[in-house]
Amino acid sequence: MPYRFLLVSAFSLPDTAGYRMRAFSGRKQDMLLNHEMLEPLLDGEEWDVHPGAPATHGEWPVETREEFAVTGVNRLKVVREACETGRYNAIVLLGGGDPGYVEAREIGHRHGIAITACAHAQMHAAGMLGHRFSIIDISENHNLRMADLVVQYRMTDRCASIRNLEFPLPRPAHAGRVSVQDESERYRRDQTSDMLESAVAESIAAIEEDGAESIILGCSAAYWLQPVLRRRLAEIGWDVPVLEGYRCAIAQAKMLVDLGVDASGVAFPKDPPPRTRRRKFV
Amino acid sequence: MPYRFLLVSAFSLPDTAGYRMRAFSGRKQDMLLNHEMLEPLLDGEEWDVHPGAPATHGEWPVETREEFAVTGVNRLKVVREACETGRYNAIVLLGGGDPGYVEAREIGHRHGIAITACAHAQMHAAGMLGHRFSIIDISENHNLRMADLVVQYRMTDRCASIRNLEFPLPRPAHAGRVSVQDESERYRRDQTSDMLESAVAESIAAIEEDGAESIILGCSAAYWLQPVLRRRLAEIGWDVPVLEGYRCAIAQAKMLVDLGVDASGVAFPKDPPPRTRRRKFV
Amino acid sequence: MPYRFLLVSAFSLPDTAGYRMRAFSGRKQDMLLNHEMLEPLLDGEEWDVHPGAPATHGEWPVETREEFAVTGVNRLKVVREACETGRYNAIVLLGGGDPGYVEAREIGHRHGIAITACAHAQMHAAGMLGHRFSIIDISENHNLRMADLVVQYRMTDRCASIRNLEFPLPRPAHAGRVSVQDESERYRRDQTSDMLESAVAESIAAIEEDGAESIILGCSAAYWLQPVLRRRLAEIGWDVPVLEGYRCAIAQAKMLVDLGVDASGVAFPKDPPPRTRRRKFV
Amino acid sequence: MPYRFLLVSAFSLPDTAGYRMRAFSGRKQDMLLNHEMLEPLLDGEEWDVHPGAPATHGEWPVETREEFAVTGVNRLKVVREACETGRYNAIVLLGGGDPGYVEAREIGHRHGIAITACAHAQMHAAGMLGHRFSIIDISENHNLRMADLVVQYRMTDRCASIRNLEFPLPRPAHAGRVSVQDESERYRRDQTSDMLESAVAESIAAIEEDGAESIILGCSAAYWLQPVLRRRLAEIGWDVPVLEGYRCAIAQAKMLVDLGVDASGVAFPKDPPPRTRRRKFV
Amino acid sequence: MPYRFLLVSAFSLPDTAGYRMRAFSGRKQDMLLNHEMLEPLLDGEEWDVHPGAPATHGEWPVETREEFAVTGVNRLKVVREACETGRYNAIVLLGGGDPGYVEAREIGHRHGIAITACAHAQMHAAGMLGHRFSIIDISENHNLRMADLVVQYRMTDRCASIRNLEFPLPRPAHAGRVSVQDESERYRRDQTSDMLESAVAESIAAIEEDGAESIILGCSAAYWLQPVLRRRLAEIGWDVPVLEGYRCAIAQAKMLVDLGVDASGVAFPKDPPPRTRRRKFV
Amino acid sequence: MPYRFLLVSAFSLPDTAGYRMRAFSGRKQDMLLNHEMLEPLLDGEEWDVHPGAPATHGEWPVETREEFAVTGVNRLKVVREACETGRYNAIVLLGGGDPGYVEAREIGHRHGIAITACAHAQMHAAGMLGHRFSIIDISENHNLRMADLVVQYRMTDRCASIRNLEFPLPRPAHAGRVSVQDESERYRRDQTSDMLESAVAESIAAIEEDGAESIILGCSAAYWLQPVLRRRLAEIGWDVPVLEGYRCAIAQAKMLVDLGVDASGVAFPKDPPPRTRRRKFV
Repeated sequence: MPYRFLLVSAFSLPDTAGYRMRAFSGRKQDMLLNHEMLEPLLDGEEWDVHPGAPATHGEWPVETREEFAVTGVNRLKVVREACETGRYNAIVLLGGGDPGYVEAREIGHRHGIAITACAHAQMHAAGMLGHRFSIIDISENHNLRMADLVVQYRMTDRCASIRNLEFPLPRPAHAGRVSVQDESERYRRDQTSDMLESAVAESIAAIEEDGAESIILGCSAAYWLQPVLRRRLAEIGWDVPVLEGYRCAIAQAKMLVDLGVDASGVAFPKDPPPRTRRRKFV
Repeated sequence: MPYRFLLVSAFSLPDTAGYRMRAFSGRKQDMLLNHEMLEPLLDGEEWDVHPGAPATHGEWPVETREEFAVTGVNRLKVVREACETGRYNAIVLLGGGDPGYVEAREIGHRHGIAITACAHAQMHAAGMLGHRFSIIDISENHNLRMADLVVQYRMTDRCASIRNLEFPLPRPAHAGRVSVQDESERYRRDQTSDMLESAVAESIAAIEEDGAESIILGCSAAYWLQPVLRRRLAEIGWDVPVLEGYRCAIAQAKMLVDLGVDASGVAFPKDPPPRTRRRKFV
Repeated sequence: MPYRFLLVSAFSLPDTAGYRMRAFSGRKQDMLLNHEMLEPLLDGEEWDVHPGAPATHGEWPVETREEFAVTGVNRLKVVREACETGRYNAIVLLGGGDPGYVEAREIGHRHGIAITACAHAQMHAAGMLGHRFSIIDISENHNLRMADLVVQYRMTDRCASIRNLEFPLPRPAHAGRVSVQDESERYRRDQTSDMLESAVAESIAAIEEDGAESIILGCSAAYWLQPVLRRRLAEIGWDVPVLEGYRCAIAQAKMLVDLGVDASGVAFPKDPPPRTRRRKFV
Repeated sequence: MPYRFLLVSAFSLPDTAGYRMRAFSGRKQDMLLNHEMLEPLLDGEEWDVHPGAPATHGEWPVETREEFAVTGVNRLKVVREACETGRYNAIVLLGGGDPGYVEAREIGHRHGIAITACAHAQMHAAGMLGHRFSIIDISENHNLRMADLVVQYRMTDRCASIRNLEFPLPRPAHAGRVSVQDESERYRRDQTSDMLESAVAESIAAIEEDGAESIILGCSAAYWLQPVLRRRLAEIGWDVPVLEGYRCAIAQAKMLVDLGVDASGVAFPKDPPPRTRRRKFV
Repeated sequence: MPYRFLLVSAFSLPDTAGYRMRAFSGRKQDMLLNHEMLEPLLDGEEWDVHPGAPATHGEWPVETREEFAVTGVNRLKVVREACETGRYNAIVLLGGGDPGYVEAREIGHRHGIAITACAHAQMHAAGMLGHRFSIIDISENHNLRMADLVVQYRMTDRCASIRNLEFPLPRPAHAGRVSVQDESERYRRDQTSDMLESAVAESIAAIEEDGAESIILGCSAAYWLQPVLRRRLAEIGWDVPVLEGYRCAIAQAKMLVDLGVDASGVAFPKDPPPRTRRRKFV
Repeated sequence: MPYRFLLVSAFSLPDTAGYRMRAFSGRKQDMLLNHEMLEPLLDGEEWDVHPGAPATHGEWPVETREEFAVTGVNRLKVVREACETGRYNAIVLLGGGDPGYVEAREIGHRHGIAITACAHAQMHAAGMLGHRFSIIDISENHNLRMADLVVQYRMTDRCASIRNLEFPLPRPAHAGRVSVQDESERYRRDQTSDMLESAVAESIAAIEEDGAESIILGCSAAYWLQPVLRRRLAEIGWDVPVLEGYRCAIAQAKMLVDLGVDASGVAFPKDPPPRTRRRKFV
């Protein structure tokens, strides 16, 4: 199958923002978090990266419900324009909290273009591996965004728990605290991280106390945990899948393109819809 | 209890838009749909109306998921500014599809101000009267917004059905079709309406086939149906509550102010939250 | 709105019973628990109190399922007579375990009179503030009555837990134990209470372990905990609503009167019903 | 196993009531509906019948929620006295709507005596045969009692539907209408019955439209339908179990006695309970 | 009722297998686990035992999903032949994990013969006693078989938890570990057992932490725990039913024979079915 | 990603069986149903086909629960041998009713080999496109196998309905009836088919009456319907995905290989498991 993908980041920030986890311009690989983990999925395919619409909520990464809503709406313009170019058969929305995903699918379906997103794809991939997953996530408010997505995606019976590491994003509201960015840089530098240790402990609790059969990661800023968390859990005998969102969203995009589908036109009708239903069940 | 309410419309349109159901400036009563129905709830209270942030999605009322998202984000600025004035103890979000409601509650809670919205308030009021409700609604795409809200508000077990009258909003996508605005004007003029007849038929079907014990209305442009639909159903022996959103949202605002609460700080934490949970269930 | 309320206690006991938490005759305020908390909701309204039908289950407060059933049936006569006077537009059933509530609504609906009750109203109010609530309650058998109500009101998905303080009612079965009445009096006297400390601890556990987003109180004899429990939780950073039943039931009665509804005639049909359904879903 | 059963009717009426379906005194067989159907289960066992506590709700059979509550409380005295005699190892509560059942189990458990009831036993028996059952029932208000029981017994996911034949009990509220008593007598006389034809039609609809895999009967006054309804359905190819409550309640009583259990002391604690739980889930 | 039962073990092993918990030939009592516990239910009835089809999965008891599937298919031949003899009105499938049960019911229904099985019967019996049960079970992989059955039998809302004692079956995979067989023999010899102590501790945890109202046992090799576990829990104040599968399956067989039913022909249609449905709900 | 797939049919039949829909030996393409539809997914990949273990249930395709169980066990030997060769990184189980799938995953996980199956993969793919799917299926007994899978895969909330076309497999039990094989050959020959017309009608009913947002196909013998059913529905305005199992199972296998996962070791533990859980939730 010839895949033609656009990977769209959640937002771009000015250089002054101090958010250093990915680039907002330049080489497409550098605009991706942990791009080395993605290479096996992207090598040989046609793909591009959009750095994200400029942030209008503030000069920091998103964590509150309002920030997710604002960011989601900003991304819709990028999605529409990408659809209209006719260059892509799937758009992969990057970012852990899926800003704009539901609305983007509405747009994508009008163009017959599959849209995938990181939380949605992880939850569906986890469902193929076992019944229940837990979300290992970075902070209280981000947890609640993840909880909203679990409800919206109708995954409440599959979500064993959301476990909070409380290493929040580098935002003014968290000034003076150790952030996920700090821990990512520390781990890259020293191969040690308190956040990793917490992720191991919370994953064990998720498995042993909450009934998790798979682990997924909440925030894309924490996706670097995936390989090491999986290894650490395996070392103590927990043979458990650990997923992260970028690969899941890319793999799901391939699956949808392979199957020639994007989204149901009954769930995401055109405007106006060619045919309507008298009654709907929720 | 001294109520101090701001009622905030979903959006305002330019005069050229041809949307005539409510004013976007002038006397506060005229900016409300069916204000005569609301007077018993508002008389003697302190209240004001905001006509809604200027629409940026297009010059027509909202119906698609994208339009709801854009409109919701636009409304957040109005909500924040109203909260910051310190003049209100509750904000009532007008409009059937509750654009911006979840995010507005996050803002409101930081100020200790209750926020209510029309679909949310109707679903909760219906829950006090019987277990299952059906939503009588205007069009296919609007139905799906209502369905999204039923899921988001975790009312799936209470929603017997959404019944579609397919008299959509006056939007370019529906050019040439009879709109809910047309039917509203016709009913006001002639006391007849095909949309009303359809609402009666679908309400009966909702009761007899779907198990509805209460009827709620989806779109604020159809709230004029409430008294006549209730009467028509009573005339044929169906002793069933019919609700509309404006009164439910105002009455719920009173209830929350009476109880001295707005939203749970556990569900809508401050930024940063004073205390965090290690584990969450969804 | 002109509210005309009758507040009906669950039962009245002879003076010999040793139950001192409320009067069974005299000034209407004295027949209410914690009447000072209710004044903001009742001041300026027309309201009266019925002390409750004389208890026939024994000379002590109710705690077992049998006692609730007996008490509920006794209260129906009071409700019917109150409805028939034509003096009230709502009847507020006092008492934490809602004895007679479902049957009372059947009676009330025939007269177009709203009936509210303390557990039901708290659960619905909690639902407006967040998804999950926990019930802080007094004793093992009372917990099971509350559990029955959660099922009957179809709130199982919203009830995070029932937390048991095990300070039971002053009943012969608990002779020699510290009762909720003892703790209420002690707290009023000394501003200290082991029961309060237990309520704080269990509320924290409900939030942190069970996922509660709001706290409601099970037994009316424990409603005095509401303001102090809320404050104590706030002091340690838990920004969580704490409700009690009297105000919730009064506020819900206002909401129903405001909306001109009492109960669905489909869920609570007249006898005989004007119209019947061939099929019902549960 | 030596079974020692007391079968307790729901209520007894004066002769003037005109309710002729069972005797209220005399030979124990005559106090049972359709006693010939029960003989294979009772022959050779030790059993007695109580005609039911004298009705206090009125001189007619029960149909409304209030009537069920009143009747249930009246029956508790009979249950307690029977338990205290020490003569029985199980008590079978007769009557389709299980008045007093939950509270009777509380009493029975204190004596180690199993209590069974007709709706509860039918729902459990149906669950052994397939997943979903439908209830074929006599009238609108009786349907709602059955619906309350489905909720209370936590059988909502197993109840495909309640189908209403609308042949109500002979009560003043239904004066002038054809009652289930009329149809029972007509069928016994002529082997024809409109109610039977309706039951066949509604059972087919329950199977083909609602997904029923078993049929249970709502009101004991309609239990005579069981053998003929089963045969009629079989004749048209529907190989479906049809149950009635008396045999199910007797057979369940045998099963409980065989297993040496009556009810869980965790669900039905003694007063006071020997041990208590800090937390409960519903 | 004249009961004519065949009790069919899950498998038979060669003498070389070292599985000593029951005989595979000889006196029928000896082929049953704990036959002395069953005598009150079987005495005076007509019954026989089949030792089980010879194992083909290996020379050890079953624990993995594959072993259960293989064993289940092997048992179907025994079931069919027993049905065809016309000698039995019920077949009781022995063994905790119910191998072959669903398919056996399909066969049994064609002959009008009730089939019962140990896990299924325990779950249904537990449902008569309280809402939630926990399964006390022997090992990790066996737990997952029990979990599959809970799902298959649609008991997920009733299963509070599965508690793992981790005393597995004597299988090569567990060589060198203390097995349930070891503990059974030790308890029979010394009246002490680490497995019993663990069962007590896990049952308490199930009641106090998970909300169990009844205890059922997972593996038939652990059914010997039933009387002592019940007594031990009672001694510390937990008045909780403890069930085991053999008696439950026999008692359920009696109940079905008493009611003249075996399985719904809608859920287990003949081949070909006499009548078909156009639509099914799951 | 280098995919190395083995596609394993459900069973092989002797030539005398009269089942002509696929070959049981020869060219690998000929052993696949509708292989031309699969070429885009398989071209350029390394793949092989196993014709299926020889049938032991009879000389006809499988339809009853017993036949599925027998066939499933037979296939496990093929799966184990394939895993042991080390030649494959995924095994695709062909056949609509997924015989042996759950047990095969247990085997596959021990070798780190992903196993996919047609019903499972379709349900998961449908979940990515909308919430609810309906299954268009061939016959009454086959429907019940599909229903069992919906339960086993915990998809009950996503399955809107199973719609029965009643064109069964060519089996002795259906001698003299028009089979799905007949209709497949007729459609290939004439481009007409009563079965297709029925599939169109039932799909419309599934969308309009049951709430289906996607259509999946139950039996692999009916997968030829996929492209024409999708086109026919589109022609009348229903913009709805129609899936079939072979492509879904192949695409899911690719997704799992891409993500480096097969099944959760917590849900499918090794024997013995390296680590065990004390408590499990279902």
